[in-house]
Amino acid sequence: MVQKLFQKKTMTQTTIRFATPADVPAILGLIQELAEYEKMTDDVVGDASMIHAALFGGKPTAECLVAMVGDATVGMALYFQNFSTFLARPGIYLEDLYVQPEYRGQGIGKLLLTTLARVASDRECGRLEWSVLDWNQPSIDFYESLGAEAMSEWTVYRLTGDALQNVANLGDPL
Amino acid sequence: MVQKLFQKKTMTQTTIRFATPADVPAILGLIQELAEYEKMTDDVVGDASMIHAALFGGKPTAECLVAMVGDATVGMALYFQNFSTFLARPGIYLEDLYVQPEYRGQGIGKLLLTTLARVASDRECGRLEWSVLDWNQPSIDFYESLGAEAMSEWTVYRLTGDALQNVANLGDPL
Repeated sequence: MVQKLFQKKTMTQTTIRFATPADVPAILGLIQELAEYEKMTDDVVGDASMIHAALFGGKPTAECLVAMVGDATVGMALYFQNFSTFLARPGIYLEDLYVQPEYRGQGIGKLLLTTLARVASDRECGRLEWSVLDWNQPSIDFYESLGAEAMSEWTVYRLTGDALQNVANLGDPL
Repeated sequence: MVQKLFQKKTMTQTTIRFATPADVPAILGLIQELAEYEKMTDDVVGDASMIHAALFGGKPTAECLVAMVGDATVGMALYFQNFSTFLARPGIYLEDLYVQPEYRGQGIGKLLLTTLARVASDRECGRLEWSVLDWNQPSIDFYESLGAEAMSEWTVYRLTGDALQNVANLGDPL
């Protein structure tokens, strides 16, 4: 039993690091798994070249931390910089936090989130923010255990696809 | 009466343009007015130099459209680029939309929002998003009239201040 526990601990030794271009295929795989978990598989239209451009192109729009167990990429935190008007300082918005099911319950998600908080702190960001689906109680419990505050008074509105184009057609050219 | 109507139309002729460094004092004034409207005056800690750095510094973190009536800056749309993992494309997040009370009801807010939608479309962004306070029914009605979709299933969580630093201290250095 002691031997087994020791092996388990060794197996789950996790390293968090910034993603590199070689991680793109693994990141795309994790995005597809996350879409399945969020029941949004039909919404995934990105491919490896688009993810590469977003993370490592001439003008990157996002960044990514990966969680490695040995050679396996078992989780990720994909994020970008945002801005607080009232603080007049940048913040970090965590777009996706994901750990593969067979590696959950070992603190890997927490390590990704706390390491991203350290990135935010190092960059003198005023905030770290993310969104959670209301039915995802395990995640909500986890976030609240870390002292995160629910912005329950606010609702996000979104224009996308044809609706976005229709509104754009009403706007003035600049 | 015809004369009066004509004058009103002339008075409210609005131009939307990208902000320039000379607009920073006016933008800061609008941010402070917005904070009063949202009952968050105590939260405003930014000053003109911080706003200047965010919009026009070496590595800008936000952009701004301003609404001009004559020489007066009567409204703004302050935004930044974000990223959709599932679309693998950038989007635009509208952080603050504000029109001074005496200029409301004349379509200036709509012109700011539709012009920003045009910016998003021109940049091939997949989405335009923003948040609204749940008690702000006039804004909600306005957004829904444009075809925007409420992301009601999602709640934003935030770490800031001491809570952010506490979580950062748990994270690994990179």
